[in-house]
Amino acid sequence: MTRSLLVILSSPSGGGKTTICRELLRRHPDYLYSVSATTRPPRPNERNGVDYIFLGEDEFQKKIEAGELVEFSKVYNHHYGTLKGTVNENLEQGRITLFDLDYNGAANLKESYSQAVTIFLTPPSLEVLKKRLISRGTDSPEVLEGRFREALKEVNLWSNYDYVVTNDELDSVVAKIEAIIVAESCKVVPETKPKLLKELERS
Amino acid sequence: MTRSLLVILSSPSGGGKTTICRELLRRHPDYLYSVSATTRPPRPNERNGVDYIFLGEDEFQKKIEAGELVEFSKVYNHHYGTLKGTVNENLEQGRITLFDLDYNGAANLKESYSQAVTIFLTPPSLEVLKKRLISRGTDSPEVLEGRFREALKEVNLWSNYDYVVTNDELDSVVAKIEAIIVAESCKVVPETKPKLLKELERS
Repeated sequence: MTRSLLVILSSPSGGGKTTICRELLRRHPDYLYSVSATTRPPRPNERNGVDYIFLGEDEFQKKIEAGELVEFSKVYNHHYGTLKGTVNENLEQGRITLFDLDYNGAANLKESYSQAVTIFLTPPSLEVLKKRLISRGTDSPEVLEGRFREALKEVNLWSNYDYVVTNDELDSVVAKIEAIIVAESCKVVPETKPKLLKELERS
Repeated sequence: MTRSLLVILSSPSGGGKTTICRELLRRHPDYLYSVSATTRPPRPNERNGVDYIFLGEDEFQKKIEAGELVEFSKVYNHHYGTLKGTVNENLEQGRITLFDLDYNGAANLKESYSQAVTIFLTPPSLEVLKKRLISRGTDSPEVLEGRFREALKEVNLWSNYDYVVTNDELDSVVAKIEAIIVAESCKVVPETKPKLLKELERS
């Protein structure tokens, strides 16, 4: 009754999806993490194939044209995306794969894979969202205001996800995502057919 | 973000839904149990309104005609059913209500209420199903064979439920049902709209 699931965490910036994703991987060594491909140059501590799959701009373009990316986007002049090969390799392992994606990435995964489960992490309140954006850096009030508006736009897209979890307290959020994963593994799909029926077919 | 849910447990006879239901209620004093109406006479230790709502055959018939039952069935000459009034009273409390129902009962609840979540408990194997049926009483081999066939028919209807859980070990089954309840409470529905958006609407 093991079901491979693609669990996509999404949130506006300041929503905390990266922290939650890391904590889930720490608690569940059997979970996989979907490593994104990017054209951004590696930072000193980053390892190719672990933190990102680092590709040249030409290579990335060729993969886009060959239809090898499930989703991709351009942020500050650099491409980021998920390779179909990565998703399929993870699916073959019959395990849970976590994704840390934005709205479009989540929507594209959902469209392409029946095993995809999308979870939106929402900041608990306007005040907390503002605080989290401010604590991220020394941006000017104009930049912060822009990020705040952008975040609100993303929260407004919440109803396109499968689940919504309020990101208030780490342990509670992690427990809810774990529960969603267990529940999705019990969903009625061909893979969860009772063993007893398979026994009958064989006899 | 509290969502009232109607959680329906169903299983063939020997599937163990009553034990699981009792254990969930013991662990969660905030859960409600949907008390069925019946025309069967009360047993010495049974209390009206707690174990069953005991009704005369005439009363029950009148309620059927008045459309006051969400589901009902006749077993060994006695009627059993769920009153709409009971469901609505429980829903108003904004809590989780557990139901112990057969296939038709589960299907009717699901059709009538968007808050209904149906869970099928399947025996883990043919051998365990046989053992459980035998341990229930001193029935003749013919009666047992009939019950076994009946149980298999019910297992064959598994794909009409929302979730399927293998009833192997009490703690594990209870944990899975708890996870399903948490996940369903996080599902994207109008009631789980992020608080942050409600704040914005008010401001």
